[in-house]
Amino acid sequence: MKENLTIVKVGGKIVEEEASLQKLLEEFTAVEGPKVLIHGGGRTATALAAKMGIETRMVDGRRITDEDMLRVVTMVYAGLVNKNVVAKLQSLGVKALGLTGADMDVIRSHRRPVKEIDYGFVGDVDNVDGEALSVLIDRNFVPVMAPLTHDGKGQLLNTNADTIAGEVAKALASYYQVTLIYCFEKKGVLANPDDDDSVIPLITPQKYESLKEQQVIQGGMIPKLDNSFAALRAGVDKVIITRVGQIGKDGGTTILNYEVQ
Amino acid sequence: MKENLTIVKVGGKIVEEEASLQKLLEEFTAVEGPKVLIHGGGRTATALAAKMGIETRMVDGRRITDEDMLRVVTMVYAGLVNKNVVAKLQSLGVKALGLTGADMDVIRSHRRPVKEIDYGFVGDVDNVDGEALSVLIDRNFVPVMAPLTHDGKGQLLNTNADTIAGEVAKALASYYQVTLIYCFEKKGVLANPDDDDSVIPLITPQKYESLKEQQVIQGGMIPKLDNSFAALRAGVDKVIITRVGQIGKDGGTTILNYEVQ
Repeated sequence: MKENLTIVKVGGKIVEEEASLQKLLEEFTAVEGPKVLIHGGGRTATALAAKMGIETRMVDGRRITDEDMLRVVTMVYAGLVNKNVVAKLQSLGVKALGLTGADMDVIRSHRRPVKEIDYGFVGDVDNVDGEALSVLIDRNFVPVMAPLTHDGKGQLLNTNADTIAGEVAKALASYYQVTLIYCFEKKGVLANPDDDDSVIPLITPQKYESLKEQQVIQGGMIPKLDNSFAALRAGVDKVIITRVGQIGKDGGTTILNYEVQ
Repeated sequence: MKENLTIVKVGGKIVEEEASLQKLLEEFTAVEGPKVLIHGGGRTATALAAKMGIETRMVDGRRITDEDMLRVVTMVYAGLVNKNVVAKLQSLGVKALGLTGADMDVIRSHRRPVKEIDYGFVGDVDNVDGEALSVLIDRNFVPVMAPLTHDGKGQLLNTNADTIAGEVAKALASYYQVTLIYCFEKKGVLANPDDDDSVIPLITPQKYESLKEQQVIQGGMIPKLDNSFAALRAGVDKVIITRVGQIGKDGGTTILNYEVQ
């Protein structure tokens, strides 16, 4: 029987506001057993870029990352956000270790090929070194991962934090029984987007198909769920979509790769 | 017999210019056996601060670090400089791992008490976890350390990189035979500051006293040498003051804590 491991992915908004960050970190600290935190930081990056006179361009929610913007996200994700989270976790007794994909060569990627859009210095993940991460985790260290990877040729690449969470979960599934928690603003996947209490408690493959047919699930939620099912198919035990205040508690949407009787 | 370990401390200027950085990293890669790199980044921090409309104030070469400046140095040291160095070292086959003192709780410090000057969020080192570093080093990882520490209560603190180098060297002296290399712009300690070729090859305690009496060594070089002797007294094997292009080669000034016949 493999040991349980919890991977929590939090969006930028949560880690960028003092109150929600503190709440998140206390909740994360209370999660028992080995764990990993993966964070964003996009809002701070956009604000810093503006201060430096650098324009932020987004396409379908993805940041166009030219050389200047890569410097900005490297400073914000790996520096400001990551190290503040690490220092605060230490104060809560968590042996945090901040990492980008370049550190210990844990996440290799390649620059996304230019098709219709040139995303710039954006990386698509090739490999996660689950073994290196598991060595740290087994020594009770808690990786805190910023959404940056590298190509092995000296180039840092900006990489979506949801994607990193999914890929890290897959790589660690050989070593642990992995629960991946995506933490965002809503209580979970909603049956009615205007009703915050209409959380769908469980989504299985059959249920997912019918929710898509009924157009209950649409838009930006589809890639999130597709990623979740991909992680489950690759050996991740369970994916939960929830919000801060509910990590490790009932509530939120659980996604399973099998039908429940 | 303990294994040799080389600690290289490089100033900001070297890591901030593409050509000298590349040269440094190739030299550092060529250093055999376990090693640690400690870097600065002050010039980039000053430039970023200026871009953000934040004034840089220095007292005796030390940066006054208010809240805004702490954000700047965290972004630059732990983000921009550290992660670029790490990614480039990976491309050279070095298993680099970027660290601040908060990561793995490796360097605890306390905020410097206010006497005549309030340095702000500046930390004086209390403890270096040599054991945690040695575990990484023994697995062939190469720590790349940014000049930031933490107080264990969630606060990051700006800490002089020369000091970090000395403290890390002392902490690792229980585990390894440590050579500490301070890498700066000059070839070594100069007998005549106007003659770049007047390098003093060896400084022992007696020699140091006589050089101070003759006022050959004065000003900013005195704290550097005092730190070096403090590291030697704490068990560090050898300190070398040299420049890029000469790491691991003859040349530079060697500092020993005993008299040579």
